[in-house]
Amino acid sequence: VADDALHKVAVLGAAGYAGALCAELVHGHPQLELTLATARSDAGVRLNEIHPRYRCAIELTGYDADIVAASAEVALVAYPHGAAMPVVAELVERGVKVVDLSADFRLDRARYEDYYQPHEAASLLPEAVYGLTEHARAEIAGSRLVANPGCYPTAALLALIPLRDQIADVVVDAKSGVSGAGRAANDKTHFVSVVENFQPYGVERHRHRAELEENLHPDTPVTFTPHLLPLDQGLLASCYVTTREPIGRDALRELFEATYADEPFVRVVGAPPGVRDVRDRNECHIHATVEQGGSRVLVFSAIDNLWKGAAGQAVQNLNLMLGLPETAGLVDAHV
Amino acid sequence: VADDALHKVAVLGAAGYAGALCAELVHGHPQLELTLATARSDAGVRLNEIHPRYRCAIELTGYDADIVAASAEVALVAYPHGAAMPVVAELVERGVKVVDLSADFRLDRARYEDYYQPHEAASLLPEAVYGLTEHARAEIAGSRLVANPGCYPTAALLALIPLRDQIADVVVDAKSGVSGAGRAANDKTHFVSVVENFQPYGVERHRHRAELEENLHPDTPVTFTPHLLPLDQGLLASCYVTTREPIGRDALRELFEATYADEPFVRVVGAPPGVRDVRDRNECHIHATVEQGGSRVLVFSAIDNLWKGAAGQAVQNLNLMLGLPETAGLVDAHV
Amino acid sequence: VADDALHKVAVLGAAGYAGALCAELVHGHPQLELTLATARSDAGVRLNEIHPRYRCAIELTGYDADIVAASAEVALVAYPHGAAMPVVAELVERGVKVVDLSADFRLDRARYEDYYQPHEAASLLPEAVYGLTEHARAEIAGSRLVANPGCYPTAALLALIPLRDQIADVVVDAKSGVSGAGRAANDKTHFVSVVENFQPYGVERHRHRAELEENLHPDTPVTFTPHLLPLDQGLLASCYVTTREPIGRDALRELFEATYADEPFVRVVGAPPGVRDVRDRNECHIHATVEQGGSRVLVFSAIDNLWKGAAGQAVQNLNLMLGLPETAGLVDAHV
Amino acid sequence: VADDALHKVAVLGAAGYAGALCAELVHGHPQLELTLATARSDAGVRLNEIHPRYRCAIELTGYDADIVAASAEVALVAYPHGAAMPVVAELVERGVKVVDLSADFRLDRARYEDYYQPHEAASLLPEAVYGLTEHARAEIAGSRLVANPGCYPTAALLALIPLRDQIADVVVDAKSGVSGAGRAANDKTHFVSVVENFQPYGVERHRHRAELEENLHPDTPVTFTPHLLPLDQGLLASCYVTTREPIGRDALRELFEATYADEPFVRVVGAPPGVRDVRDRNECHIHATVEQGGSRVLVFSAIDNLWKGAAGQAVQNLNLMLGLPETAGLVDAHV
Repeated sequence: VADDALHKVAVLGAAGYAGALCAELVHGHPQLELTLATARSDAGVRLNEIHPRYRCAIELTGYDADIVAASAEVALVAYPHGAAMPVVAELVERGVKVVDLSADFRLDRARYEDYYQPHEAASLLPEAVYGLTEHARAEIAGSRLVANPGCYPTAALLALIPLRDQIADVVVDAKSGVSGAGRAANDKTHFVSVVENFQPYGVERHRHRAELEENLHPDTPVTFTPHLLPLDQGLLASCYVTTREPIGRDALRELFEATYADEPFVRVVGAPPGVRDVRDRNECHIHATVEQGGSRVLVFSAIDNLWKGAAGQAVQNLNLMLGLPETAGLVDAHV
Repeated sequence: VADDALHKVAVLGAAGYAGALCAELVHGHPQLELTLATARSDAGVRLNEIHPRYRCAIELTGYDADIVAASAEVALVAYPHGAAMPVVAELVERGVKVVDLSADFRLDRARYEDYYQPHEAASLLPEAVYGLTEHARAEIAGSRLVANPGCYPTAALLALIPLRDQIADVVVDAKSGVSGAGRAANDKTHFVSVVENFQPYGVERHRHRAELEENLHPDTPVTFTPHLLPLDQGLLASCYVTTREPIGRDALRELFEATYADEPFVRVVGAPPGVRDVRDRNECHIHATVEQGGSRVLVFSAIDNLWKGAAGQAVQNLNLMLGLPETAGLVDAHV
Repeated sequence: VADDALHKVAVLGAAGYAGALCAELVHGHPQLELTLATARSDAGVRLNEIHPRYRCAIELTGYDADIVAASAEVALVAYPHGAAMPVVAELVERGVKVVDLSADFRLDRARYEDYYQPHEAASLLPEAVYGLTEHARAEIAGSRLVANPGCYPTAALLALIPLRDQIADVVVDAKSGVSGAGRAANDKTHFVSVVENFQPYGVERHRHRAELEENLHPDTPVTFTPHLLPLDQGLLASCYVTTREPIGRDALRELFEATYADEPFVRVVGAPPGVRDVRDRNECHIHATVEQGGSRVLVFSAIDNLWKGAAGQAVQNLNLMLGLPETAGLVDAHV
Repeated sequence: VADDALHKVAVLGAAGYAGALCAELVHGHPQLELTLATARSDAGVRLNEIHPRYRCAIELTGYDADIVAASAEVALVAYPHGAAMPVVAELVERGVKVVDLSADFRLDRARYEDYYQPHEAASLLPEAVYGLTEHARAEIAGSRLVANPGCYPTAALLALIPLRDQIADVVVDAKSGVSGAGRAANDKTHFVSVVENFQPYGVERHRHRAELEENLHPDTPVTFTPHLLPLDQGLLASCYVTTREPIGRDALRELFEATYADEPFVRVVGAPPGVRDVRDRNECHIHATVEQGGSRVLVFSAIDNLWKGAAGQAVQNLNLMLGLPETAGLVDAHV
């Protein structure tokens, strides 16, 4: 690819785990050029000083909407929710396409304000596309604003959408590694708090439940509980589905295999997946079965929370928005 | 306590994780004397050569029913299922009281043979007591054969029994550390297979489901899925209960607090417990709540799989069988 | 022990890992009473809310010298270096005996000021006893101010002192778990920074080298490098000694066995120790050998950095200062 | 690259960790074709059934020298020492170039037989090249038999060779993750033995010391001690060098920077490296410094034991033997 044919990309919030992986993936992508990477408190530092394993040595800078607009055709925004929305609005207004990794554009206004806070850029909500790639390709390709799904909803929805019309009731018991909690150092992310430990959190009402509700049928009851795993990258969603009609194990597997037969990044596997199988991969491994002597459908879905659960899917969406092959920079990613 | 007032105890299968902890607990118990510890393939070795952190230095021997009967009033049998039943029968016949840590005497015959194999000592089944201590004290105290519950059922049943009459349907998503899989070295217990991994196993039909079925109402549908955690000791059961009638959060907490108010080894806690909180403790921490905006009851129950899930509960039961204080050798255990 | 015969003890800085374990050990000690536990930023919180595994439920308070003096005969001070010295001086002046876990009273003034900062309570230095218990019993017993050794020096000096007169040169390559870095949450203690990692730190000149220099012969060259292990508790010092005269393997082992034959908390072992062997124990396991075909003496020394490397040794010293059996509250500790 | 221009490569012993990574790297290499992969006990199984994270789905077969010779121009042999030598001899005789990952051709005969066992293919020893790539490029390029260095010697020699003429004495304290111990499931590789543990092994005389002796000056005394880290991939060598003449910190760093300035896979870094920095990378990060107030030179060297310590370096050597760019298939490796 000639250099002047490269698409220019900015990554905002590139010091955090997801943002840094976005930058690293763009850096290694054959058809993209990383022109700018910002970080609020690490300006002046090189990316691979913070993340020594990465090859990308770009110097982090502060954020300025005009500079981003002058430097980049697309921006990957890896800000916390709430902080993302004004920035996304500024960029879209300046003609920059955006993949937003925060929650700010994933939900309709009422649900967002119920689960999060007042929305400051609600006029953009109608055009924002929920970027669960495998189930929204056409909309993503034509959009200028993609809301990248949360890590838990990515795993859970890939497991549940094939059954969407048949779900009478579902329990999602989900488990994630610590990188999902971000780079903020606190009591909960301290090594001694996490190692040899395992704990539920956000019970009763975790915000990611909102994404499940919004993407399943409106009246489907969803129970969702996340747990913190003593590992760095990896997420497993164990989904327990009561179906409206009984479904046999063979029919179930055929349904999943048919749904995902041609997907480059979803593999239907013959045994329950381990999160280690997808580490540092933009992949989702799914296993669906029916309980013996019972009627409950079990679906297990494993991803790397930083890849298919965040930065990998963001680049997958960006590829679609730019008309590039969906797998570009991902199948051969050497992070 | 005068030496001749000590109760003599044998531990069979003392090389494995649960058996070794039984031996260590008996060794440190103020009213017990460890007179014999057997191990099939480690005879001649001292216990603390295999488990260097332990203080018990007894030399392991082979098994002989007559020697056990001559040496001990009670035996803790930590054999694999199937191997336990003939040995337990021999010992009971010789007048030795037994706490059996295997599954061999936990179920009625039909269910055992459905989930396991033909039973070779079925005549003992009617008198065997299922030793979930908090819910079977009187029977345990009067018994000569206690079937120590499995680690998963211990956590799950302590969480579910207070609700037993109200459960319309329950999903138990359970997670355990690797010591639960025993000392056998194989692909699944290799460090590299486990670290940075997390995986369901025994889906569709794990044997521990049988114990849940047997100890809840006969017609209660139970879904049970275990997962392997990358840590050594610790077990969490996340229980998702659909109740027959709605129950409020306050009523729910009162129910659990009332049930376990006077229990020395069960603590009802105000937030979801982590398994680290109960490491090396004969304790179960339980948190019960109701999902916000929903009606599902959530109960989380954490134990150390080797303690309350195996050896600790075995000693707790043995204390009852011998008329000792239930907490003897456990609250002050210095393992 | 009658209640009024209990010695009253205060723990200062009881929210941190070492201070909290001090409090827990005092709480469980048969001849001590924990009358006060302070914590700068956690006043009003109960100890076992911060450390849920602990049994001690004392409410943490702020620090006031007069209150401490009114409440306690002895204080265990678990403050950072620099912060400890004024407090220790205040307490000693008020007649409170002190075991100080900081570095403030471990070194002579010149060395302290070279490695740390100006000393503000230098008049106390002459009477402060360096509390490596096994090698300073008499002085500790008669002292009102004991400087508890650092975790690295404890392991290294127990390994090196038997050879002190014969060391021509020594390299100490030491490795510690993360609890040694304290409860402060920062980039270095974040789970994702530590897991699957291993790294030297403080190379060129770590402060703990000062304690080695001060406790070996003045002209012995000492190289000391610490490394951070991906585990919570445990410390290994690998010591490489060039001796003045060759020494045979048998003579070496006899030397170590003779030195530590009657020690309750030091065990000379026949193979290199693992840190897991001493987890949650006030023990040091030492293995000494001579390289084959070479003349270098190798000594490996394992401790739990929070126990023999901090709180355990502090209580061991406190026992001596109060005329109690040295092992009281430690051999039977059930933390 | 046209398919018929691909070099055909066989991997022997492809079920183990190093062999499987060899196969995966060859599979993803733009100028190589993996024509055959053997495994003694896993014939008939696909590689990515054993290692689910890998993309290579080749079916493993048994070993037959004629089939290998007919299928491949080069073989990567990942057998245990002793088992490799007859196979290597057979293949070389049939005109197949070999990179041998075992120890069988790394040493001269006397040293091999001293440290290992009688040599059965000694006539090949004179032509075997010790494949520490950065220091033997020309010989490797012209060789038909390259002995791939051990993981510990790779890290240690890259750290020590720049100083080779100046070393009066050296201590190498080395630490490796569990994958270095191979896929064999045993007490030492069981998760529960390794987690929360850290332990020296092979003290007194580890076989990898032989490679250090052979590649430094004959009369340089070398002390070498390996330790087992509780992580899967990663190796750090901490080298403590007494130099013949004092050397300043700046001169030392210049020496290392000059030595490795143009190396694609060795990076001289400004602070002690962590093994996480090189995980899944064919890289060695080296930091050299001089102890403050002392004269000891410290060199820290971090690699991934499976990459630069085994399979990565094997492919690097294979590239040279085939006249390919040294970095082919490695810089862009997406394992």
